[in-house]
Amino acid sequence: VERRFIGIGLLGVGGIGGGVAAVLAEKAAALAEHVGCPLELRCALVRDRARSRPGVPDDRLTTDPEAVLADPAVDIVVEVLGGEEPARTYIERALAAGKHVVTANKEVIAKFGPGLLARARERQVGLLFEASVGGGIPLIAPFRRELAANDLLTIEAIINGTTNYILTEMDRTGASFGDALAQAQALGYAEPDPTNDVEGIDAAYKLAILATLGFHSPVHPDQVYREGITRLSERDFRYAGELGYAIKLLAIAKQDAEAIEARVHPALVAQDLPIAKVDGVFNAVQVDGDLVGRLLFFGRGAGPRPTTSAILADVLDLASAVRRGQAVNHVLRLDRPKPVRSMAEVQTRFYLRLSVADRPGVFAQIAQVFAEHQISIASVIQKESDESAQTAEIVIMTHRAREASVQAALGALAGLPAVVEVGNFVRVESQ
Amino acid sequence: VERRFIGIGLLGVGGIGGGVAAVLAEKAAALAEHVGCPLELRCALVRDRARSRPGVPDDRLTTDPEAVLADPAVDIVVEVLGGEEPARTYIERALAAGKHVVTANKEVIAKFGPGLLARARERQVGLLFEASVGGGIPLIAPFRRELAANDLLTIEAIINGTTNYILTEMDRTGASFGDALAQAQALGYAEPDPTNDVEGIDAAYKLAILATLGFHSPVHPDQVYREGITRLSERDFRYAGELGYAIKLLAIAKQDAEAIEARVHPALVAQDLPIAKVDGVFNAVQVDGDLVGRLLFFGRGAGPRPTTSAILADVLDLASAVRRGQAVNHVLRLDRPKPVRSMAEVQTRFYLRLSVADRPGVFAQIAQVFAEHQISIASVIQKESDESAQTAEIVIMTHRAREASVQAALGALAGLPAVVEVGNFVRVESQ
Repeated sequence: VERRFIGIGLLGVGGIGGGVAAVLAEKAAALAEHVGCPLELRCALVRDRARSRPGVPDDRLTTDPEAVLADPAVDIVVEVLGGEEPARTYIERALAAGKHVVTANKEVIAKFGPGLLARARERQVGLLFEASVGGGIPLIAPFRRELAANDLLTIEAIINGTTNYILTEMDRTGASFGDALAQAQALGYAEPDPTNDVEGIDAAYKLAILATLGFHSPVHPDQVYREGITRLSERDFRYAGELGYAIKLLAIAKQDAEAIEARVHPALVAQDLPIAKVDGVFNAVQVDGDLVGRLLFFGRGAGPRPTTSAILADVLDLASAVRRGQAVNHVLRLDRPKPVRSMAEVQTRFYLRLSVADRPGVFAQIAQVFAEHQISIASVIQKESDESAQTAEIVIMTHRAREASVQAALGALAGLPAVVEVGNFVRVESQ
Repeated sequence: VERRFIGIGLLGVGGIGGGVAAVLAEKAAALAEHVGCPLELRCALVRDRARSRPGVPDDRLTTDPEAVLADPAVDIVVEVLGGEEPARTYIERALAAGKHVVTANKEVIAKFGPGLLARARERQVGLLFEASVGGGIPLIAPFRRELAANDLLTIEAIINGTTNYILTEMDRTGASFGDALAQAQALGYAEPDPTNDVEGIDAAYKLAILATLGFHSPVHPDQVYREGITRLSERDFRYAGELGYAIKLLAIAKQDAEAIEARVHPALVAQDLPIAKVDGVFNAVQVDGDLVGRLLFFGRGAGPRPTTSAILADVLDLASAVRRGQAVNHVLRLDRPKPVRSMAEVQTRFYLRLSVADRPGVFAQIAQVFAEHQISIASVIQKESDESAQTAEIVIMTHRAREASVQAALGALAGLPAVVEVGNFVRVESQ
C-alpha cells in the first residue's frame, strides 16, 4: 500500500525535542522529498499541556505516554526525554508495540543498549541512536558501517563539550575551576547541577557506547574508570603549558588481544596533536583502525540543531524503509567479547605536582619512593619556592607505569615528612 | 534460500585490488561473521595471468572481463581499475547483469555517477563508491545519510594527498615545487606523470562527487574551476607565513539561493584554522550544514589499506543485503538542480605578489589600477628590494572582489611600465 505519511511520535518537547519539532515543520517539503512521502508529527508527550510549543499544534500535545505508544499511526517514536526512567520503559514499550525508535539517550543506550537492540531485532524494527554521542557528528553509523572491516585499536575522544569549554577557559584565562564552571553555567553550557558533566559520567556513557560498537564487545558504563576535572588547578595548566601539553578530559578505549581498557579522566596531551587543539564546546573523536589508520571526526557535540541533525538522519533512514516496506534489520555485532581491564593494571605515563620541604635530600627521598615502586622518572623540575614557608613545588614526569604502582607510590609520597602536599596527579597520553 | 557464500568479482589487482584481495583472505572469518556467510573471491581480472598475486589463488585469475561480469556466482563486482575506460563500460555491464558494484573510481563516478546510479536503481542493485573520495575517511555515506536533513552551505576540502604532501614540504623546508615533487615521486606519493594530481584534476573529480551529493544538484567535473599548484614559489610560502597564512590546494564548493560555486585552486588559509594544520598526505573535509554547523573529517585519503577499508565497508553493506534477500534501493537525490556559477562571478579576497620598479609614484599607479577595477586593497607590504636591478617586490592583500575584475586588474597591472612582473596571484579563503 502507498503510504500517505510516516507518523512520528515525540517523547519530550524540551530543548532537543522542540528543535526536532521545529525542523520537522520548517523542512517538511525537503524531508518529504527525501522519504517519498511526508513525515507527520502525530503526537508529542509533554509534562504541561497548557504551555504551547512552536512547531507542534496544540491538539497534538499529550501528557499521556500511551497516546504516543499506542497510536497505530505512529511509525517512529523519537525519544528525547533523557535520563534512565521513564525513557527506558517507554523505549521498551514502543519496541514491543512494533514501532521504530530513534533516541538521543546516551544513558539508556550505554546501560541497556545490547538488550534493547536485541529486542528491536526480534520485533524487526529499528532502534537508532546517532544523536547519543557527539551531537551532529556522524559517529554511530560510521562505527557500525564504514569502519566495519577494521579492527579498531584505540578510541580517544573529547566527547563532553561542557568540560572542554571549562578546561579551555582555565587554560586560556588562568581562571580557577569554580570560576570557569560559573561562566559555563552563565552561558548555558553547564547545568545548574554540573555533576554529570564535570565528574565524567556523561563522557563515560558515550565512551561505553563507542567502545561497545567499535570493539564488538559489551562495555557497560560501570566498567569505565572515571575521574572528573574538579581537582585541576590553574597551576596544572601553567606547568602543562610550559612542558608543551594541553589538559583535556579524554575518554579513552583501547583493546589488545586479551582485554579492553576504558577510562575517562583528565590527561596531558602534547600540544601539537590534533586533539589538543579541540577547544571550547567542540567535540572530537579520534579512531585508529588496522586498515584505515587514524581518523578524526570533529564538530559540535551538543545543542538542539546539531542533535536534531543526527536525530533526523535516523528518522529519514527508518522512514525511507517504512515507506518502501523494507525490513529493518540492524545487527549489533558483539562477537568479540573481552574482559575490561581493571584500572590497577592500566599503564600510563603521568605528571605529578608535589609541594615539598625546601631542604637538601628531599629529591633523594622522593626518587627512592619511585624506585621502590618500579616507576621510572622522565624529568623533575623545581617550579616555585615559597621562601617564607620554606617549601618548593616540584613537577615530576614519569615513563609508563602500572596504575597500581603509581597509586602505591602516591600513598608512600604522602607519608614522607618532607612532602607537604601531593598537589595533583594527571595521566599523560602520548599518541 | 540460505546463501552458502557471497561471490565477489574483482576488476583489477594492482595496489588497491591487491589490498582488497589480501584483506578478504586475512579477515575472512570476521567478514563472514559480519555478513552471516563467507565472502568468496570468485575471480579477479588481471592483465597478466602469469604473475601470481598474494591472496588470489592462481585459478581465480582471468584476463577476460566477461569471466567476471557473466559469472552467475558473482554477486558483487569490485572495480578498482581506475580511469574512465574500460572501467565505465565494465561497471555498466555489471549493473546490466544485475550485479551490485563497488567502485573506488572517482573519475567514472564524477563524470557518469548520476546516470550509473539511475541504472543501478532500475536494476534494483547497489552502486556504492565510498572509496572514491578521501580513501578510508567516511564521507560518501555520511553525506548521503547522516547529513541528509541538512542544507549544506559550504564544503572546503584538502582531498589530494600528493599535492598536500608537496605543499607541506615546500612550506616546511623551503623547497621549490620541482624538488618537492621529485621527493614525492621518490617516496611513491606522486605518479611518474603527476598531471592528474598537481593540476587539480583528481581533486576536481572528488569535489564534483561531494558537491553533487551535498547539494542535490548535478555538478560535472567540467564545471569545476581548476588551477594547479605548479606556479607556487618558495617566496609565496614565506610571505604567506609572515602574514599568518598557510597555502593549501583547496577544493571548495558553496551554494546560495541562486547558484553553486565549485573550484579547486591554491589558497591562503589562516594558520589557526583546523584545515591549515592538515599536513603531509592527510586529507580533511570540512562541511558547514544549516543544522549541524561545522564538521571536519580527517584521515588518510589514499593507500591500499585505507582504501580497502572503504571498499569493504561497501561490500559488507551489499553482502548483508544479498544474504538477507533485501532489496537495495539507494536514491541519489538530485531534486535541487542549480546552475554552477561562472568563475568570473566568484568573489574572493586575494594575495598578489608583484615585482615593480623601485621608484617614487609606483604605488600610486598600482593603487589607481585597483581603484579603477573596484578592488579594495586591505594591505600593501614592500617585501624585498633588489638594488642592482632597482626593483622591489610588493605583496598586496585585497578585500573581496569579483574574479572578473581581478583578472582585468591583473592584465592592466602587467601592462604598467613600472610593473616588472606579476609574480603570483593566490586567492584567500577566510572561513
